[in-house]
Amino acid sequence: MSKEMGNTEAAAPAVLDAIQFNGDGLVPAISQQFDTGEVLMMAWMNRDAVTETLKTGSVCYWSRSRGKLWRKGESSGQTQTLKDFRWDCDADTVLIMVDQVGVACHTGRRNCFFNAVRDGEPTEIADVETDPKELYGES
Amino acid sequence: MSKEMGNTEAAAPAVLDAIQFNGDGLVPAISQQFDTGEVLMMAWMNRDAVTETLKTGSVCYWSRSRGKLWRKGESSGQTQTLKDFRWDCDADTVLIMVDQVGVACHTGRRNCFFNAVRDGEPTEIADVETDPKELYGES
Repeated sequence: MSKEMGNTEAAAPAVLDAIQFNGDGLVPAISQQFDTGEVLMMAWMNRDAVTETLKTGSVCYWSRSRGKLWRKGESSGQTQTLKDFRWDCDADTVLIMVDQVGVACHTGRRNCFFNAVRDGEPTEIADVETDPKELYGES
Repeated sequence: MSKEMGNTEAAAPAVLDAIQFNGDGLVPAISQQFDTGEVLMMAWMNRDAVTETLKTGSVCYWSRSRGKLWRKGESSGQTQTLKDFRWDCDADTVLIMVDQVGVACHTGRRNCFFNAVRDGEPTEIADVETDPKELYGES
């Protein structure tokens, strides 16, 4: 974590107080590589995920599909170290600056936003950098 | 718009087909300043907003509070010109690269993510650049 944030664990109650969680108790969290500005992914956090992220300095989301805390990199090793924790004017979206180990996307791409319009058609614009089998093992 | 995108209006049906809109018919859209990487804001798009954005090259969102299309900059003049239109691995989040005129945030700050943890406390880290009264007029 960056020194300027200070004691993020102590800040957690005030941050939780500020953030407007939606009806499902969630807030969207955008992660951005702190030094390059690359937008890596968007996922969701609940109160526990925000608390754990601020306490440990390692990013934790809430997995809507699995219905449990998602400690980013727990299975894949592709962790995100918290560098800055920000939220927007309406306090209903979080922007976290992180240092991403390896690849952020479960497809093995560096970031999740690899679909784009090229020559008037949907096109994949990024290559797989790490075989997902290496990230999650054969199954 | 960037030349590499080609005819974005023609691409709209395929893009709409790819994107997974939520139960309310919306998808979160993150906007990022195309040349600096600054994350400006997060808002929502419905099918019509995606279509209009791809057709006009000027970013249009769906205002959940007003329940209507929100042509960014229509009132304030702070438009966003589309530079690239991307979506993620699950096709449930959009990332648009834009050229932002003036300030993205209705508070008059350049971007909406001006709240952060500093010295263990929530702190505003960006100054107002343009008086909101200048953007929206006295009321």
